[in-house]
Amino acid sequence: MAEPRTNNITTMLENLLRILKEEHVFNRSEDQRVIQFLHPKELQAKISFSLDKEPVKEEQLETLIRQVIRYSVKTNSLNFHNQLYGGIDEYGLMGSWLTESLNTTQATYEIAPVFTMIEHEVIKKSLELVGYPSMPHADGIMCPGGSMANMYGLIMARYKMFPEIKKLGASWLDKPLTCLTSQDSHYSILKAAHWLGIGTDNVYKVKTDKYGCMQADNLKEVIMQIKNKGHVPFFVNATAGTTVLGAIDPLQEIAEICRRENIWLHVDACLGGTLLFSEKYRSRLRGIELSNSVAWNCHKMLGAPLQCSLFLVKGEKALYKANCSNADYLFQQDKFYDVSWDTGDKSVQCGRKVDAMKFWLMWKARGTIGLGSLVDNAMRCVEYFLKRIRETPGFRLVQSDYQLCTICFWYIPPKMRDQPETLNWWKQLYNITIEIKKYLTLRGSVMINYTPLLHKECGNFLRMVVTCQPPPTESSMDYVIKEIEKVALELDKSLS
Amino acid sequence: MAEPRTNNITTMLENLLRILKEEHVFNRSEDQRVIQFLHPKELQAKISFSLDKEPVKEEQLETLIRQVIRYSVKTNSLNFHNQLYGGIDEYGLMGSWLTESLNTTQATYEIAPVFTMIEHEVIKKSLELVGYPSMPHADGIMCPGGSMANMYGLIMARYKMFPEIKKLGASWLDKPLTCLTSQDSHYSILKAAHWLGIGTDNVYKVKTDKYGCMQADNLKEVIMQIKNKGHVPFFVNATAGTTVLGAIDPLQEIAEICRRENIWLHVDACLGGTLLFSEKYRSRLRGIELSNSVAWNCHKMLGAPLQCSLFLVKGEKALYKANCSNADYLFQQDKFYDVSWDTGDKSVQCGRKVDAMKFWLMWKARGTIGLGSLVDNAMRCVEYFLKRIRETPGFRLVQSDYQLCTICFWYIPPKMRDQPETLNWWKQLYNITIEIKKYLTLRGSVMINYTPLLHKECGNFLRMVVTCQPPPTESSMDYVIKEIEKVALELDKSLS
Repeated sequence: MAEPRTNNITTMLENLLRILKEEHVFNRSEDQRVIQFLHPKELQAKISFSLDKEPVKEEQLETLIRQVIRYSVKTNSLNFHNQLYGGIDEYGLMGSWLTESLNTTQATYEIAPVFTMIEHEVIKKSLELVGYPSMPHADGIMCPGGSMANMYGLIMARYKMFPEIKKLGASWLDKPLTCLTSQDSHYSILKAAHWLGIGTDNVYKVKTDKYGCMQADNLKEVIMQIKNKGHVPFFVNATAGTTVLGAIDPLQEIAEICRRENIWLHVDACLGGTLLFSEKYRSRLRGIELSNSVAWNCHKMLGAPLQCSLFLVKGEKALYKANCSNADYLFQQDKFYDVSWDTGDKSVQCGRKVDAMKFWLMWKARGTIGLGSLVDNAMRCVEYFLKRIRETPGFRLVQSDYQLCTICFWYIPPKMRDQPETLNWWKQLYNITIEIKKYLTLRGSVMINYTPLLHKECGNFLRMVVTCQPPPTESSMDYVIKEIEKVALELDKSLS
Repeated sequence: MAEPRTNNITTMLENLLRILKEEHVFNRSEDQRVIQFLHPKELQAKISFSLDKEPVKEEQLETLIRQVIRYSVKTNSLNFHNQLYGGIDEYGLMGSWLTESLNTTQATYEIAPVFTMIEHEVIKKSLELVGYPSMPHADGIMCPGGSMANMYGLIMARYKMFPEIKKLGASWLDKPLTCLTSQDSHYSILKAAHWLGIGTDNVYKVKTDKYGCMQADNLKEVIMQIKNKGHVPFFVNATAGTTVLGAIDPLQEIAEICRRENIWLHVDACLGGTLLFSEKYRSRLRGIELSNSVAWNCHKMLGAPLQCSLFLVKGEKALYKANCSNADYLFQQDKFYDVSWDTGDKSVQCGRKVDAMKFWLMWKARGTIGLGSLVDNAMRCVEYFLKRIRETPGFRLVQSDYQLCTICFWYIPPKMRDQPETLNWWKQLYNITIEIKKYLTLRGSVMINYTPLLHKECGNFLRMVVTCQPPPTESSMDYVIKEIEKVALELDKSLS
């Protein structure tokens, strides 16, 4: 039998670090290319992806790693503004490399003693930040992404109102449970409604105003409609930072309605939760402390490495009560240490990746103050970008104002500027938006996404996202505007 | 405003690598301590976990990182046998560091072009390994852990039988959906039944034989009972590698029953799927190709870094059809590249961590042959350990034989050996099992878990787990036996 290939791990890791350096993965300068874009077929022709019977040679492996890096998106670049996440906090990256090296899960204290304490501290401080009661009157858990955190919210709410469903299933109900969320909210509520047996038809969309904020009056109306049908509204999802406009729903008003109607209020603060670190901006989330649960992705605006999602919830041992299964082969009660530290039975997952270490190290290394100043810096750049868009000819905002770190706008090429804005004109603008995005990506200078807002009958526009990492500057904001003008000039020529 | 702390990332990472080396994180020698165990209160006194307003100093940070390492479990040690996972494959670790550095998600081709291709290849080859049809007649997705992969199985089965539930919710049904799984199967089926609105009472436990394998005759009986009640059995979970005994259910027989009864067959091969790499052992999973879906954790026996879970399913675009929500702001259909490569709408998650890279790099670097020889090596050690347990005085197997990589046994201290095996004798043995585990952990020489099997009316015994990484040897197997004898000798003295 062939002996397994064994190697000196640290030498391999040193080599990897050298390659990462040589390939400029951590280069944050403005001229760092964000992407060397290849279409799927071109990429398949370029890299040998196939997994075969025989191993590849060591030299080939280095080539492959370099290729993986070259054709991947450089999210660490200053010019990556495509998603709601961006570059990574360097302390976060250290934390994640450390976590990967120690390879364990959060299921029990025994196999993750230090990480158990670290997650505990992260949850404790996050509860404080949100304005929730302290443990054990509230609790939290880290989970793989915001969609999962929102699912936790739905589960906790359902368990509170109908604990019987855990045992009996939802078919035990003779009328559907219904939940409410805004038109501008994230699609994860729909996906969760599918998975959890609630049904996507039982997700009611509440109208938003032109800024994308939930209209509290309409919330009241929809609750009434549901009740008139004889159905049971059990969950309101308010959003603190919608995906497109970055809108923050009026949390205080919504909380008051939920309190009166006895409906669980969950706040999807996946994007906006990060503002809580800033003395200057945290008031924009006023009312979040009145909710029953919160989802917050520290890997979005704040720059923790993916994934780093927190679910926080009020209630004595609430997570454990709702989710426990008491598996005797994992959560033995006769262990030789204090098993109340085992967190596994709070979770729907069994093995749970350690996501706390990276966030803890960031927080430890920067302090609440340091994280706050990163947020303030990002928000200052948002405001600067907004000002530049307002004053630069050819740019037009989709909405006049933005509460968070996304800014939506069009670029109108010179030739179109003094034309009557007919339906056809708009169609052309929507198409040009795609073209701008395409040419920026092919140039590799800036990555910025476009999107329509169909329920607002609005076609494609560009969505700029500003995150804390790498710390943006006025110059990096200017760069985006200049690049758009540059590619649009080419486009303008092609229009003639 | 204070300037954010910025640093040279590569210098920081070089320092981290130096610390990892100095603290022996990758030391795989036999004398490497697995754990320096501290009770929760001792640990809290030792490390400053608190997150504060002010940042800590750079030197303090290094101290903290060293402390985190020192008091964490060294899962890379040869003597870690506590969980169903163990050390990490070094190529896997390189892959995970690379993934972390490039920080992106699998949602669209655009933001993860290379990783999209890599996941595609991993899924393609895994389908082949399982014996499923090739894409697009089958598909797969990587997801955060085996519990999630099993949930995917339930969702796919439910959507196949009652697609209406996606829109209408489970309360639309007037009788409960029920699913079946064995007594020895993983508790994630119960947790999933809770979350998905199926209800834990609607999970029927099928009896197992003494080896922990599902009894096909009993499966038929339970299906009949469910039908006689007028309920709908829609899902059978067979296990290929139970958590405790490592039992593999008779997949062919179960598949035949499911075919006749028109019930979805899911195979939880989280533990056992890894045998498929071995020419010698893959026949133990015969019949897996007849199932509808499979869950497989490459982070368990194979040693991919946590988490690395595959869900595989038969059916034309099955995952997409069941899970799509067509969110217009993310999965735009007018993008400039072939959007059929975007995988996000197959998933219940939005951002999805890149887990494919580490597995791909392992496979690429070792070839199917190399991974197979790692499995054969582990299984050879399992057989050696089993032989040693059989022949060494004082050791007694819980079951006479094991199909996979776990071996369950007791150690009977000399003073108890010639005593009549009364109820009290057994009680004492169960307690001694806890004590052995405790002293091994406190010594830090070996980590091995204990568990009862309550539905078999069996109290605590030790469960040895042998994984592929770091490659075990006869000597590392002997070491466990010697260490147990050593601590038991101390215990034996205290018994007198």
